[in-house]
Amino acid sequence: MNGAESLVRTLVAGDVNVCFTNPGTSEMHFVVALDRVDGMRCVLGLHETVVTGAADGYARMADKPAATLLHLGPGLANGLANLHNAGRARSPVVNIVGDHATYHRRFDAPLTSDIEGLARPLCHWLRTSPDARQVAADGAAAIAAARTSPGQIATLILPADTAWNEGGGVAPLPPVPARAQVADAVVAEAARVLRAGEPAALLLTGPAVRGRGLELAGRIAAATGVRLLAQTSNARIERGAGRVPVERIPYPVDPALAMLKDLKHMVLAGAKAPVAFFAYPDKPSVLTPPGCDPHVLARLEEDVVDALARLADAVGATAGPAATAPLDPPGLPTGPLNLESLGRALGALLPEHAIVVDESITSGRNFYALTRQSRPHDWLQNMGGSIGLGLPLATGAAVACPDRPVICLESDGSGMYCLQALWTQAREGLNVTTLLFNNRAYAILRHELAQVGAQNPGRKAVDMLDLGRPDLDWVMLARGMGVPGERVTNVDEFARGFGRGLKTPGPYLVEVML
Amino acid sequence: MNGAESLVRTLVAGDVNVCFTNPGTSEMHFVVALDRVDGMRCVLGLHETVVTGAADGYARMADKPAATLLHLGPGLANGLANLHNAGRARSPVVNIVGDHATYHRRFDAPLTSDIEGLARPLCHWLRTSPDARQVAADGAAAIAAARTSPGQIATLILPADTAWNEGGGVAPLPPVPARAQVADAVVAEAARVLRAGEPAALLLTGPAVRGRGLELAGRIAAATGVRLLAQTSNARIERGAGRVPVERIPYPVDPALAMLKDLKHMVLAGAKAPVAFFAYPDKPSVLTPPGCDPHVLARLEEDVVDALARLADAVGATAGPAATAPLDPPGLPTGPLNLESLGRALGALLPEHAIVVDESITSGRNFYALTRQSRPHDWLQNMGGSIGLGLPLATGAAVACPDRPVICLESDGSGMYCLQALWTQAREGLNVTTLLFNNRAYAILRHELAQVGAQNPGRKAVDMLDLGRPDLDWVMLARGMGVPGERVTNVDEFARGFGRGLKTPGPYLVEVML
Repeated sequence: MNGAESLVRTLVAGDVNVCFTNPGTSEMHFVVALDRVDGMRCVLGLHETVVTGAADGYARMADKPAATLLHLGPGLANGLANLHNAGRARSPVVNIVGDHATYHRRFDAPLTSDIEGLARPLCHWLRTSPDARQVAADGAAAIAAARTSPGQIATLILPADTAWNEGGGVAPLPPVPARAQVADAVVAEAARVLRAGEPAALLLTGPAVRGRGLELAGRIAAATGVRLLAQTSNARIERGAGRVPVERIPYPVDPALAMLKDLKHMVLAGAKAPVAFFAYPDKPSVLTPPGCDPHVLARLEEDVVDALARLADAVGATAGPAATAPLDPPGLPTGPLNLESLGRALGALLPEHAIVVDESITSGRNFYALTRQSRPHDWLQNMGGSIGLGLPLATGAAVACPDRPVICLESDGSGMYCLQALWTQAREGLNVTTLLFNNRAYAILRHELAQVGAQNPGRKAVDMLDLGRPDLDWVMLARGMGVPGERVTNVDEFARGFGRGLKTPGPYLVEVML
Repeated sequence: MNGAESLVRTLVAGDVNVCFTNPGTSEMHFVVALDRVDGMRCVLGLHETVVTGAADGYARMADKPAATLLHLGPGLANGLANLHNAGRARSPVVNIVGDHATYHRRFDAPLTSDIEGLARPLCHWLRTSPDARQVAADGAAAIAAARTSPGQIATLILPADTAWNEGGGVAPLPPVPARAQVADAVVAEAARVLRAGEPAALLLTGPAVRGRGLELAGRIAAATGVRLLAQTSNARIERGAGRVPVERIPYPVDPALAMLKDLKHMVLAGAKAPVAFFAYPDKPSVLTPPGCDPHVLARLEEDVVDALARLADAVGATAGPAATAPLDPPGLPTGPLNLESLGRALGALLPEHAIVVDESITSGRNFYALTRQSRPHDWLQNMGGSIGLGLPLATGAAVACPDRPVICLESDGSGMYCLQALWTQAREGLNVTTLLFNNRAYAILRHELAQVGAQNPGRKAVDMLDLGRPDLDWVMLARGMGVPGERVTNVDEFARGFGRGLKTPGPYLVEVML
């Protein structure tokens, strides 16, 4: 068995069952090996940003890594922005990046580049396989690295000759380090803070906004009165009817400051202390008020759920039930489309167990609030702020969860960074309904222009934020990639279009004109 | 004047008149400054790969750098693949990459990354501005670096507060180092080799395949009988009727070896010694035969034209006219479309002074030969091998040369990496006719599969090279971005469609079904 086959067999043995690919010549032996090994699903993306963004979405829903297959330095470079996002989401990902044969690199052929140099800033683990007999063990190490809490980006560079030369057989998975438990003193300090009777918030993310972690947080809130907050962005929140509701810190600085201004204590469960997404002249970077120093209950790499369980014990919240949201979605509105009516319609129509991928940016600022009491669902956000993640993230989530409806809330500006994901959705027959909000602008930047104090923008500046001239026709773009869709201009059409999207097998796109 | 305005004024004073942009919040002051300064054209791309690829195309045709404007690490990352290509073409480019305000970086907000780390592997010059008063001088240094022979990728990182704080005024351009002249002994040695009467080739690229350099090479060939060859890929070749014809070394290894097998000497004028694009088991990396050691006449960073002039003197080729191609294009064929008839039709119809951007990959293997005696034109290729450059390269070339027809020979697989460029072409009304060859496959990889010795590919492997299921509809994709077009299925339709494309103001796309 050659090195490539030993690597594919090691991946499958290590429970890596999906490979998102955009291969080239140097990866051909790996591609051929995929056919010789059962148990690996291959999903082609037509740009590497689809590949890495889909791996992120897959990992968030499957709670395990997918592999990616990328072509030398530029192929990796094309995927880096969504690896940045995946890394910030702490999604486990195993990247396989082909390289020239070891003996060919010194000739500096056109595609030669410093692949390790490109990978280093955004990968938690990085290795170049030296020869074919080592490839399987390196692949196993990459899986273990990716799975190391809270999830890591692991990148294995695979020179072509290490794929085609005789390999060393399947390698066993090295042990994955356990999540560290936090010290008793840390839990005791958090308990003291919450019982102090002063205004306090428990800031959650990661495992603290899902399943048992969320339930524990809800009990702690019921027992102590602490306010539950989530980060502005979170990899995956379980919410809607029957789940403990959690407010998110708003993205704009002023509402965020207003939300937090009376807090005396903030206890962090997986979350980072809140800071402004960008700096603005005359606005603070730190969002908590002076004197409100964050207390770290558990960092994301530690055992956050265990820490919450011990905190619940410490504050006597073991028995008390958490307050959960009732099933009480908004009524379905009618008439003109605006951000309010759109949010209500979304809240009314959201199907049970939907996976909602939210990259709606300015169009969706009130979607979160208006879906609080909708049918239970998961809410996935962009964790790294590099826009263009929505369509691939939805693609990967749908690969992980073929039986759940995936709703992608996408904006026109963000969507254009990675529209190629629609083709993969069509090829794989994925149940993704994309709601594409077309406001013909980088609307977020129009807000930001004022926020940064850039006064009196002229025509050239305004043009850089305007996506009209020519108008994008998203229904046509989708159809060009095999995805059916329709354009809607009022709430009634929206409701019908959304319904058709949910009922249509495979992907569907509803272009919502705002 | 704030730092951003001092930088824009410095760019304009330094003869940088075009800025390809995909800005975000951290670049807003730069964007606003563009309006306060005359003489800077702003061109928006909807993905950074458009931005950097267009800067490459602009530089190749304008012989000077454009600026790019990119948003933090992920924005730069999205543009890196085409910066790799631009770097390999030795195109001068001045990248401006916004970053968080200096005091905000330590908070590790979501978009924070090691921008210098990401830039370093693919940039020749790199600096982060420390404060607003230094920004203009840093910008001037970036221009000088970009212009340093043979052309460099210069990247200036601009923290947001260095843009919005009070700047230091326009900075003067530092001196650009002159191209080094090669030593007399080097010229004498090359002359000796060419006069030895043994089979020899002069391998050209860069300034040696344009204008005076090409003319000198032609005279040297006429005087000595040396064979003129060009690299497999070249940034820009001037060719067609009235120009000295130059054969290119083929991309596949076996024909390349066959072409070079009888050579005893190879003299390099700007070119690198020819090596295989990829390594293949049982094929050599080096394409010249044993015993044929390349002689470097001039490296690309040296004064190649001066070296050719001195070589012409040394071999007594000062007066003799070079043999140029006659105007004798192929006759326009009729009937079914195949790669031969397509090449003939292209050769017949190519308009005078066309700029041909060639990313046709397998579909275009004989286009070069069949356009040898067409009307005079420039031929631009992908120098770095990261596919997806064609559409943005054509975009930038059209911005540089609004009065010349730009013909983009693009393939379906490559085109999908950067279809967003079509929108920029529509917005800017650029005269680009895209001939999109739709063979519904990564056809190059089907060839490569056999070349690398990957035998008996199965269904999964073949699927990774197949772009059908669903079929892409390029006419619809183009229309979705405001570019008119049509689909053609025989040579007569092709000729009419190509003609309509050339006549239509602004961009046009002809989808050629193969």
